[in-house]
Amino acid sequence: MIYQKEITVPSLKRGYHLITSNIISELPDLPRTGLLHIFIKHTSAGLTLNENADYTVREDFEKVFNKIVPENQSYYSHTFEGADDMPAHIKASLLGNSVTIPITESSLNLGTWQGIYLCEFRNSGGRRKLVLTIYS
Amino acid sequence: MIYQKEITVPSLKRGYHLITSNIISELPDLPRTGLLHIFIKHTSAGLTLNENADYTVREDFEKVFNKIVPENQSYYSHTFEGADDMPAHIKASLLGNSVTIPITESSLNLGTWQGIYLCEFRNSGGRRKLVLTIYS
Amino acid sequence: MIYQKEITVPSLKRGYHLITSNIISELPDLPRTGLLHIFIKHTSAGLTLNENADYTVREDFEKVFNKIVPENQSYYSHTFEGADDMPAHIKASLLGNSVTIPITESSLNLGTWQGIYLCEFRNSGGRRKLVLTIYS
Repeated sequence: MIYQKEITVPSLKRGYHLITSNIISELPDLPRTGLLHIFIKHTSAGLTLNENADYTVREDFEKVFNKIVPENQSYYSHTFEGADDMPAHIKASLLGNSVTIPITESSLNLGTWQGIYLCEFRNSGGRRKLVLTIYS
Repeated sequence: MIYQKEITVPSLKRGYHLITSNIISELPDLPRTGLLHIFIKHTSAGLTLNENADYTVREDFEKVFNKIVPENQSYYSHTFEGADDMPAHIKASLLGNSVTIPITESSLNLGTWQGIYLCEFRNSGGRRKLVLTIYS
Repeated sequence: MIYQKEITVPSLKRGYHLITSNIISELPDLPRTGLLHIFIKHTSAGLTLNENADYTVREDFEKVFNKIVPENQSYYSHTFEGADDMPAHIKASLLGNSVTIPITESSLNLGTWQGIYLCEFRNSGGRRKLVLTIYS
């Protein structure tokens, strides 16, 4: 059995945002056992799973990824969409454009501290489209 | 329903290569709804999704990942296969060895700007084997 | 058809550990064709596929990721769980929390040199829970 739905997440500011409850609210009754695949249809935003309790973790994500992929470096060629654009593409591939989560006993089987992050790498990324696919 | 096929991609030069049309040409008629999993059977090449229009994005990928994982550092122990080998292993795990793409209305449901990249991290990586698996 | 099992991996020291044979020993008879999804229910440990032969590759992983995400930087805010904690969260998202491997002719269809790594980013991470899901 397969279920699929496309959703739109309203504009979020640059940074790392917990969207676990937004995703769950979009899901139908879950099958007893399965997998949920979440896909982001963009190349300058990403999805990952990480710590869901302390907001400073998400603030540190912003700082650390800006260190790993700094803006305004002389070696960038793709610069016409702004200083945040090419670093956003790199971050999107570093963090990834999808997550797959087990479904167990009709719930997402996340660890206690795992939450779903939408990673907005652009200064003004706009709305983002996600595709949710459930297998069972 | 499950469909699976192993394909070989001819040698590509070191760098980031758009292979979306190559992949699509290998696929059978797609189911109405499903997922495509693409897997690369190697540890010094990777797969990712990113910007499909401006080739300078792919050139910048090469430059940026060489900054993040520089060659010829004194702390590498695994050096006997050449200066590009150990950085290639790290890059393979940073970018990942598979992508999973939703299938919607019998087409790959990629975003407008998303293309499939084969990331060749070796100077002479040779042919690369991929496994395509479709679920529906 | 779907099969799912949760397993616990005993405490491993900080570093990159080959767990391919541990995973295979936990699996039932595999279907002829399918996918295995392996998920780690933690935010300071990860899963990846990489070189399975030379242990110095795994030692270099430890060194390189400590360079990419150094400890004890003044810009970290989330520091109350120790110097290894925030870097562990970043590494978990860089490397990822799951891998999906094709099953072909009733075996994992890994490349010759591919092994499954459990990446323990904490100094004392304790036992780690994995969820194995097989689709066919």
